[in-house]
Amino acid sequence: MKGILVIIDGLGDLPNKLLGNKTPLEAAKTPHIDFFAARGEMGLMHPVRSGFVPESDEALLSIFGNEPTPGCRGQFEALGVGLNPLRGDLALRVNFATIDSIKSGKIVDRRVGRTLSSKEIDLLSKSLKNISLPVKFEFVPTIQHRGVLVFRGGMSEGVSGNDMVYSSGRVAMQERISLCIPKDDEENSHYTANILNEFVEKAAYVLREHPVNLSRVKKGLMPANYLLLRSAGVDFPKIKEYRRWCSMGYMPLEIGFAKKSSMGVFSFDYPKQKGFDAYENLEDGLNKACKFAIKIIKKQKDKFDYCYIHLRETDIAGHDNKPVEKKIMIEEIDRTLFKFLRNFAPQNKIKVAVTGDHSTPCKFKVHSADPVPVLLYDFQIPREKHFNEKEARNGSLGRIEGNEFLSRIGFDK
Amino acid sequence: MKGILVIIDGLGDLPNKLLGNKTPLEAAKTPHIDFFAARGEMGLMHPVRSGFVPESDEALLSIFGNEPTPGCRGQFEALGVGLNPLRGDLALRVNFATIDSIKSGKIVDRRVGRTLSSKEIDLLSKSLKNISLPVKFEFVPTIQHRGVLVFRGGMSEGVSGNDMVYSSGRVAMQERISLCIPKDDEENSHYTANILNEFVEKAAYVLREHPVNLSRVKKGLMPANYLLLRSAGVDFPKIKEYRRWCSMGYMPLEIGFAKKSSMGVFSFDYPKQKGFDAYENLEDGLNKACKFAIKIIKKQKDKFDYCYIHLRETDIAGHDNKPVEKKIMIEEIDRTLFKFLRNFAPQNKIKVAVTGDHSTPCKFKVHSADPVPVLLYDFQIPREKHFNEKEARNGSLGRIEGNEFLSRIGFDK
Repeated sequence: MKGILVIIDGLGDLPNKLLGNKTPLEAAKTPHIDFFAARGEMGLMHPVRSGFVPESDEALLSIFGNEPTPGCRGQFEALGVGLNPLRGDLALRVNFATIDSIKSGKIVDRRVGRTLSSKEIDLLSKSLKNISLPVKFEFVPTIQHRGVLVFRGGMSEGVSGNDMVYSSGRVAMQERISLCIPKDDEENSHYTANILNEFVEKAAYVLREHPVNLSRVKKGLMPANYLLLRSAGVDFPKIKEYRRWCSMGYMPLEIGFAKKSSMGVFSFDYPKQKGFDAYENLEDGLNKACKFAIKIIKKQKDKFDYCYIHLRETDIAGHDNKPVEKKIMIEEIDRTLFKFLRNFAPQNKIKVAVTGDHSTPCKFKVHSADPVPVLLYDFQIPREKHFNEKEARNGSLGRIEGNEFLSRIGFDK
Repeated sequence: MKGILVIIDGLGDLPNKLLGNKTPLEAAKTPHIDFFAARGEMGLMHPVRSGFVPESDEALLSIFGNEPTPGCRGQFEALGVGLNPLRGDLALRVNFATIDSIKSGKIVDRRVGRTLSSKEIDLLSKSLKNISLPVKFEFVPTIQHRGVLVFRGGMSEGVSGNDMVYSSGRVAMQERISLCIPKDDEENSHYTANILNEFVEKAAYVLREHPVNLSRVKKGLMPANYLLLRSAGVDFPKIKEYRRWCSMGYMPLEIGFAKKSSMGVFSFDYPKQKGFDAYENLEDGLNKACKFAIKIIKKQKDKFDYCYIHLRETDIAGHDNKPVEKKIMIEEIDRTLFKFLRNFAPQNKIKVAVTGDHSTPCKFKVHSADPVPVLLYDFQIPREKHFNEKEARNGSLGRIEGNEFLSRIGFDK
């Protein structure tokens, strides 16, 4: 193995009052990452380009040298959960969400407060299969409030989802539900929009009456009573091959992207969400992810040139405006994965790169155009240098006159 | 101890054909110095100022933050060998030299080919004590062909020596003997010049007939038949105090300078020159010096803040146009002193600075105005760095766009 790339999702942030006007990364104690920082190079990255607010799929495409084609997320996620979408199959990313009522259309929480247990989601998802539509569809829940919706053939990608936060790309929160809208005058686009709206409407009725939700409401919990759709796509963009890479990811998007990039894909069973404390579960998942990543790195180091590790939980804390939790997540990554890498990478002469796919500033609760920090540790840094006239000429001490020498080198303190 | 300053005498050089157009320092294999180079900072130093060709005493004065007052060498060397010159005592640096004959005045070798044994010098020096002059004088041989001449009081420093290479400061070799010349119209300067010339003349007669020289001539060796005088001075310049420093030097100039600077002075008995192979002796001396330096560093590390180590032999190779030998000397220093420092300095959080007092390019055989390389290893380099937005902003990777990221960090090779 030559290099390990760790992408910490939504890593970039802005100074936050809760952290004494530091960013979560600035506030976090990360001695192991800093070991690499002291011996490496840092910089900032615009995942797509300056001023651009990337979705995760666009950022990932760009970082791996592809065009940041929008609206591929559904396809990648479908591939990530094993649905193998073919060219022409319409795939969409879905969120279980909470709305006030269909009448008011007010969105209470885009993720049901992250309080859905895995068992509840399974039950809710099963009930969606009974929805009657003029076309066949498949709905697969993925992780937590997330799911994928696939229509096999015959549909158009010329439609928006009903999740306007992501459809518009604007950095603003959506307050009300909307319809899926055809993006062009093609008949099929209108037809597809109608089908999607029918699905959402029928799902809302199924969910509203679902025993899981009735029980949740009784307990004073948000019901998962609405579906938010986005990233309608019928084909993958053409992307680069990374056959000498392996990947360690556990979210459908990252798994699907790695599969499509011809990487060796490794994943693990993400812990089922049992209770209502999303963050307990997330920390558990992150810990499992870091440990699994270590295992993969050790096991695959002679088989692949590069390893791409994607850790997702930091982004969630950003979306939830939880700066302290984001800081804790970063520290957890440092304490597990980077504690291991600190010895492993130099010993095995493996480079380590760390970055985020984009910024998710806590105070915005959505992705932003802020650049993300980048770190490269190269075991060859400090690079070989020789003390001689030639190399000294370009040295960082510059030209000194004898009688300022001792003070210049600090031998007078 | 906070810092160790190693001054490698005459270190700077120019590309040399015998070394494949590399300088001795460039050609030398110095893995231990390079360990510091890779972790430190380099630069170039003009010991006095750009374009100035410094004598050793001037360079040393300047590097320790003093005015590079010329002509102090005699005083410093007298102090270095324990003669304790008082204000008004005239001190001069002396070389045993070889001339063709007094009549032709042609200088054959300014240092008797560095072939004088310690025993021979002792015998020759003793015979000089019998010279009858109108004033009292002391002559003390120091190391190899070197000596110090002191007149106690009543003399003028307004005289040149008879060593025109050094009196003129020009980068050119002296071919013929000359007289000591008064530098002003003071009666005492004329008187002093006369005394000095009388001494040199009488010494030439003593030396010519001396059994040591007769025996040397028989063996086909150069006779030590002339004295070259330089650096006439009656007082020390005002110089800075370095009470928190200790020094490890073994040449009279460096010892005297360190004493006058109020350093703790440590020295050792330089190996006596037995045979005719000057370089065998020099390597022996250098090895002993490095080992002694290690001893002093270990022993004094809790007593002094800084340690100044002066290693002399590289300069000699420069004066003799021996680039290969100069390279070997540098490698010897690396193999002994720096092999030790490589572990010792980082472990004890001691800074290490390396430089030369001036350049002595082999092909010139004299000092030059070329700047000398400077190296500073600071155990704090790599300095503490933290991976975060703030520090990444000023990082050496600069700003990157996502789709150039992998190639920029070299993860595409």
